[in-house]
Amino acid sequence: MARRVRAFIEEVVTPHEDAHDGDIEAAGGESLRRELQGQARERGLLTPHGPRALGGLGLGMAQRAAVFEEAGRSLFGPLALNINAPDEGNVHLLEHVATDEQQRQFLAPLVRGETRSAFAMTEPSPGAGSDPAQLLTEATRDGDAWVIEGHKHFITGADGAAFHIVMARTGGAPGRAGGATMFLVPADTPGVRLVRHLGTQDRSMLGGHCEIRYESVRVGHDAVLGEVDEGFRYAQVRLGPARMTHVMRWTGAAQRAHEVAVRYAAGRRSFGSSIADQGLAQQLIADNEIDLAATRALLGEACRQLDAGERASHITSVTKTFAAEALHRVVDRAVQLCGGLGVTSDLPVARIAREIRPFRIYDGPSEVHRWSIARRAVRAHGQTSP
Amino acid sequence: MARRVRAFIEEVVTPHEDAHDGDIEAAGGESLRRELQGQARERGLLTPHGPRALGGLGLGMAQRAAVFEEAGRSLFGPLALNINAPDEGNVHLLEHVATDEQQRQFLAPLVRGETRSAFAMTEPSPGAGSDPAQLLTEATRDGDAWVIEGHKHFITGADGAAFHIVMARTGGAPGRAGGATMFLVPADTPGVRLVRHLGTQDRSMLGGHCEIRYESVRVGHDAVLGEVDEGFRYAQVRLGPARMTHVMRWTGAAQRAHEVAVRYAAGRRSFGSSIADQGLAQQLIADNEIDLAATRALLGEACRQLDAGERASHITSVTKTFAAEALHRVVDRAVQLCGGLGVTSDLPVARIAREIRPFRIYDGPSEVHRWSIARRAVRAHGQTSP
Amino acid sequence: MARRVRAFIEEVVTPHEDAHDGDIEAAGGESLRRELQGQARERGLLTPHGPRALGGLGLGMAQRAAVFEEAGRSLFGPLALNINAPDEGNVHLLEHVATDEQQRQFLAPLVRGETRSAFAMTEPSPGAGSDPAQLLTEATRDGDAWVIEGHKHFITGADGAAFHIVMARTGGAPGRAGGATMFLVPADTPGVRLVRHLGTQDRSMLGGHCEIRYESVRVGHDAVLGEVDEGFRYAQVRLGPARMTHVMRWTGAAQRAHEVAVRYAAGRRSFGSSIADQGLAQQLIADNEIDLAATRALLGEACRQLDAGERASHITSVTKTFAAEALHRVVDRAVQLCGGLGVTSDLPVARIAREIRPFRIYDGPSEVHRWSIARRAVRAHGQTSP
Amino acid sequence: MARRVRAFIEEVVTPHEDAHDGDIEAAGGESLRRELQGQARERGLLTPHGPRALGGLGLGMAQRAAVFEEAGRSLFGPLALNINAPDEGNVHLLEHVATDEQQRQFLAPLVRGETRSAFAMTEPSPGAGSDPAQLLTEATRDGDAWVIEGHKHFITGADGAAFHIVMARTGGAPGRAGGATMFLVPADTPGVRLVRHLGTQDRSMLGGHCEIRYESVRVGHDAVLGEVDEGFRYAQVRLGPARMTHVMRWTGAAQRAHEVAVRYAAGRRSFGSSIADQGLAQQLIADNEIDLAATRALLGEACRQLDAGERASHITSVTKTFAAEALHRVVDRAVQLCGGLGVTSDLPVARIAREIRPFRIYDGPSEVHRWSIARRAVRAHGQTSP
Repeated sequence: MARRVRAFIEEVVTPHEDAHDGDIEAAGGESLRRELQGQARERGLLTPHGPRALGGLGLGMAQRAAVFEEAGRSLFGPLALNINAPDEGNVHLLEHVATDEQQRQFLAPLVRGETRSAFAMTEPSPGAGSDPAQLLTEATRDGDAWVIEGHKHFITGADGAAFHIVMARTGGAPGRAGGATMFLVPADTPGVRLVRHLGTQDRSMLGGHCEIRYESVRVGHDAVLGEVDEGFRYAQVRLGPARMTHVMRWTGAAQRAHEVAVRYAAGRRSFGSSIADQGLAQQLIADNEIDLAATRALLGEACRQLDAGERASHITSVTKTFAAEALHRVVDRAVQLCGGLGVTSDLPVARIAREIRPFRIYDGPSEVHRWSIARRAVRAHGQTSP
Repeated sequence: MARRVRAFIEEVVTPHEDAHDGDIEAAGGESLRRELQGQARERGLLTPHGPRALGGLGLGMAQRAAVFEEAGRSLFGPLALNINAPDEGNVHLLEHVATDEQQRQFLAPLVRGETRSAFAMTEPSPGAGSDPAQLLTEATRDGDAWVIEGHKHFITGADGAAFHIVMARTGGAPGRAGGATMFLVPADTPGVRLVRHLGTQDRSMLGGHCEIRYESVRVGHDAVLGEVDEGFRYAQVRLGPARMTHVMRWTGAAQRAHEVAVRYAAGRRSFGSSIADQGLAQQLIADNEIDLAATRALLGEACRQLDAGERASHITSVTKTFAAEALHRVVDRAVQLCGGLGVTSDLPVARIAREIRPFRIYDGPSEVHRWSIARRAVRAHGQTSP
Repeated sequence: MARRVRAFIEEVVTPHEDAHDGDIEAAGGESLRRELQGQARERGLLTPHGPRALGGLGLGMAQRAAVFEEAGRSLFGPLALNINAPDEGNVHLLEHVATDEQQRQFLAPLVRGETRSAFAMTEPSPGAGSDPAQLLTEATRDGDAWVIEGHKHFITGADGAAFHIVMARTGGAPGRAGGATMFLVPADTPGVRLVRHLGTQDRSMLGGHCEIRYESVRVGHDAVLGEVDEGFRYAQVRLGPARMTHVMRWTGAAQRAHEVAVRYAAGRRSFGSSIADQGLAQQLIADNEIDLAATRALLGEACRQLDAGERASHITSVTKTFAAEALHRVVDRAVQLCGGLGVTSDLPVARIAREIRPFRIYDGPSEVHRWSIARRAVRAHGQTSP
Repeated sequence: MARRVRAFIEEVVTPHEDAHDGDIEAAGGESLRRELQGQARERGLLTPHGPRALGGLGLGMAQRAAVFEEAGRSLFGPLALNINAPDEGNVHLLEHVATDEQQRQFLAPLVRGETRSAFAMTEPSPGAGSDPAQLLTEATRDGDAWVIEGHKHFITGADGAAFHIVMARTGGAPGRAGGATMFLVPADTPGVRLVRHLGTQDRSMLGGHCEIRYESVRVGHDAVLGEVDEGFRYAQVRLGPARMTHVMRWTGAAQRAHEVAVRYAAGRRSFGSSIADQGLAQQLIADNEIDLAATRALLGEACRQLDAGERASHITSVTKTFAAEALHRVVDRAVQLCGGLGVTSDLPVARIAREIRPFRIYDGPSEVHRWSIARRAVRAHGQTSP
């Protein structure tokens, strides 16, 4: 299947990306999505991670790795296969937590590529950024309904999404964990206000990264996803796999940048020999190979743990942190290998660099991951005898 | 004077940059240049490195360091002070090599900010990239005139420049050093053709980075800058100082990014304390301080050698290489310190990152500098007794 | 089994290491080896990778990983389990290439821990260092015998070894590949001369790293290991697994250093809190966790390929290079976490640092591995379309 | 003068170091010190930083840089010139704080090379390590005398020192700053007990790094150095210059390692060319040149500030941190360039690596320096407008 994905991406998807320097809106936006997903559907490649019962292909984590990586070779590839963030993670979450009725209403059209969705968790300061305990968005019970009041930003894909999964405080005090609930909120519910698109440097995410206000948004009790006050636990369910599918997609992008750079360097001569045969270029090339191999090896280990039903917090955190930095280095070295053309739109490396940079921040900055990795290590080894 | 430049930049220049995310064309292009340079002239800050006889302020290299760094705090600052590449380096070159008549015709209006200029050296593959010996552009004598035939790219500022300094082969064979001559070519000379703007990721350079063809361009012998066949030697005259003024300007940009990030981190709380008081942020902040201090220290040493009349090839190459990488790290850490907002246009750090990245490639990629640094070291120490 | 090895190492082996700062000669040398291997034999832990037919435990590569890592937690652990270099790799080589008679004479006592062995390949300049093609040691046919003439150094464990596996040129010219043969040479053969122990910084290898001369050493044709002129091919058979078992052992040593450091940092207070809770220490701790996890993940992938019968040159080269550098970083950070005591013999970290440093050079310096990794990448991607 | 020092070191000092792998005790210890310092005295090179009035040469900080670097080219060089830690810093301290009588008794023989001294500040946990406020050693007034009670470790040079400068608490509570006093304590005062030498990996410091107990040590009031309760302030007087002279000495050692490595690489062939002409070696060589140049540039800036009478806390902390790490990298790369011989005593690089490693911990670990550098940056920029 990975081979079929590779062919589809190369033949159908990449040309659109190349023609518009990876800017999804410039390339057609929603209408391009429908066109590409249509072709993926015809080739039997759409929503490979979705539940089979709803039309997906039901791939497990380890199986996804190769397929998602191939999709990631084009910045528009994940969208084409309907495995883009946040839809991909939302499918996973709804599959595990939503009621049958919720699945019918929200999940099924998502799997079929008819709708898009958003996951509304991150808040502007002083709300929930890296520290979810600071959650300020609140949902209060009003008879049979809930009223949501809050402010979110960096809500990926929100512009055009059919519904939002909104994390809101339903108990406890801000600054303390506990007491969060997830709500399924159709985007056209009164009070859902798209404030603006954040001017992020990446431009390949359909629907952008949005700032949203929820102003007295009223939803019924059937909008509660799973149990009340269990939102943080469900976020964990979504988190591990979502981190890993990010890594899969970006591995594909970095691999492409690496290949472009090696080919470029092999074809260009300077100081009497091919650049790719010169030692300082060889260092860049070898370091790329090493970083890519280590990323895939960690990813494989994390997928095995996830497929075995483990929560895998440590390995997914370690893998996300390593991969975000390693893949960024790979793309940066690819830019360097391409010389002046590496910072232009003549080659895809500059745009891949632009798109991948935020991965060291999105989904938890490396610093926050390191902080929790260290704390786990101190718990594990702080008392052992050497 | 540095203090006056700081005030000018903050009050007058930065607002234009901030309003247009550092895109010089969007901000007004040539007309903004005239406006900003007009104000710099009124404040007595224009062309601080230009010869006094022509209206400049005559600062030496060490004196320039502080002034240029302040200008660099805005991406439009160097343009506002008329110390932008390539004009800044061209002023230096013309001051040292041009005849009186050439100075009157080309240098004087440049110093006064009436014109802009280009320096046409770099060629697309297989021509002169990092390796000047591969120079393919050719000038042939035809009676009293020269006819230039060639193809250049990455010619900064060429769109709108009044004249080009064109490096062309006048002797020897491609792949061998020697036999290059510089020509002063008015941009409106028949045969000078602007092919396109390269789609570089940086957007703050007025006139862009252009691809140019010289198609049977005919100039008189008085267009020769200095002596025939001495072009590579003059390029060296220009090179050392030009490398260092790049470092000065980028130090200012990186310092600004650092300050923005520290202020942001100091004001944002997470996990119960200010981000700036958390160890992993402290590491980023401290490393920035160290990289900035080391860059300035190397720059100071290089300027002392240049002011003492030395060629300073080794120290300027070392300083350029270190600074391009260190300042890139500084800005990258600043992005990281600002979290999600660090990759948006809400703060200036993302745009500074976009603009500074090519510095590791422009003016000689780090790899080529390292290659020549190593060869010099082997010559110096390969035979010494330990 | 890994758990039993852990207990054996902690209870029996580590105390000897700690009492003599990891110096195997000071700790008893050959007599300590016999004592420790005796206890390993009693516990059923001796020679876990050796063929079952000869008394080994027959573990495959993936199975070895956990066991060897546990052994590596003490610098004397690999010796205690009879899985030290070069014996461990020689067992592997002889199992695959030696005749029955050679196995009876050389391999069987090795598996039983009765003898030790050496692998004599590396030569002093201008002979075979990183580049095997420079092999200068020569074996010439003389009737039914071979006469070996040559000079080797860094021959690990040679002092006290019962026999040497000697690589010698039997065809072709120095500087060209091809034409090498391996010979089984009993150490007491006339003409085998131990010149000296090299004064290496590591001190835990029994038998040291020796300089050896082979002066008209005469052996019968039955001393030929495998086929004449196939020596380089057999070296490859030995190489992949031997690289990976190095990684396994050193992972154990680095893991121990990490745990010692975390425990130390958790117990020491400075500036009002535990060092381990301070951010700059957390960075060191987290980076150690990441490097250890990535090393194990790469190792796992390499073992899977080797167990599947692949030659696995690329992945073992990548893994060796990454691991040697990553584990060195881990130990270096552990030293740093322990502050002043980290550079004393009060804690094991300084001695682990001393022992692990050469791993970036032994078995191919990182630079040579990178060179071949890059060349493979250019072959793979130099012509592909992006 | 630097040239004369270079000659002295090469001709007289280095042979002793080379003959004993940098182990000062093995090389002769105190008697070697007297012999080498005698020859330095004859050549007019002894105690170049000491006050002229007492027989020193009175060099300022900037002048010391070149001289101390030359001395540092041999691990025994600083001892030979009487500029070793801690004597070198103690001379500086006594010159600025001691009374005439104290100078006559303690400083004068130190400058003449007749005695050695110790600086007793660092305490084992939970006392004063990186955090001086945790000072536990106490001095209590008893009539006209003081009684010192305490426990110190890492007291460099204490074995054989004529006197100790002991930092003891005379006011305030442990865990709080303030209330420390320095005492001049002859080593033969009853109650001064050398517990042991710490088993540090470095072996070139005469007198070792000792653990000392002060058991009811009784000294007169004239033993107070400067004013009571001003000890921490005087420690600052000593600190800045002492940090910088460490950098000077280690720059010399690293420069020697670099030169040895370049020469080795230039002379050794592999894969058909000189190692030094291969790109991956060129990277190591170039990075060494860059690190050495940046270290010297920072050092120059710090010396200028110190010579101008500034306290220079920030720049000396930045320089110490950068230099300790950069010079360690230089030596580590030098080891790598020398291949197998780089980890033996055949070349000096392994021993320089052994000696320089602790510099990242001694005199404040890099982590503690970074912590204070970051805090200063937050104070400076946390409130500025960007």
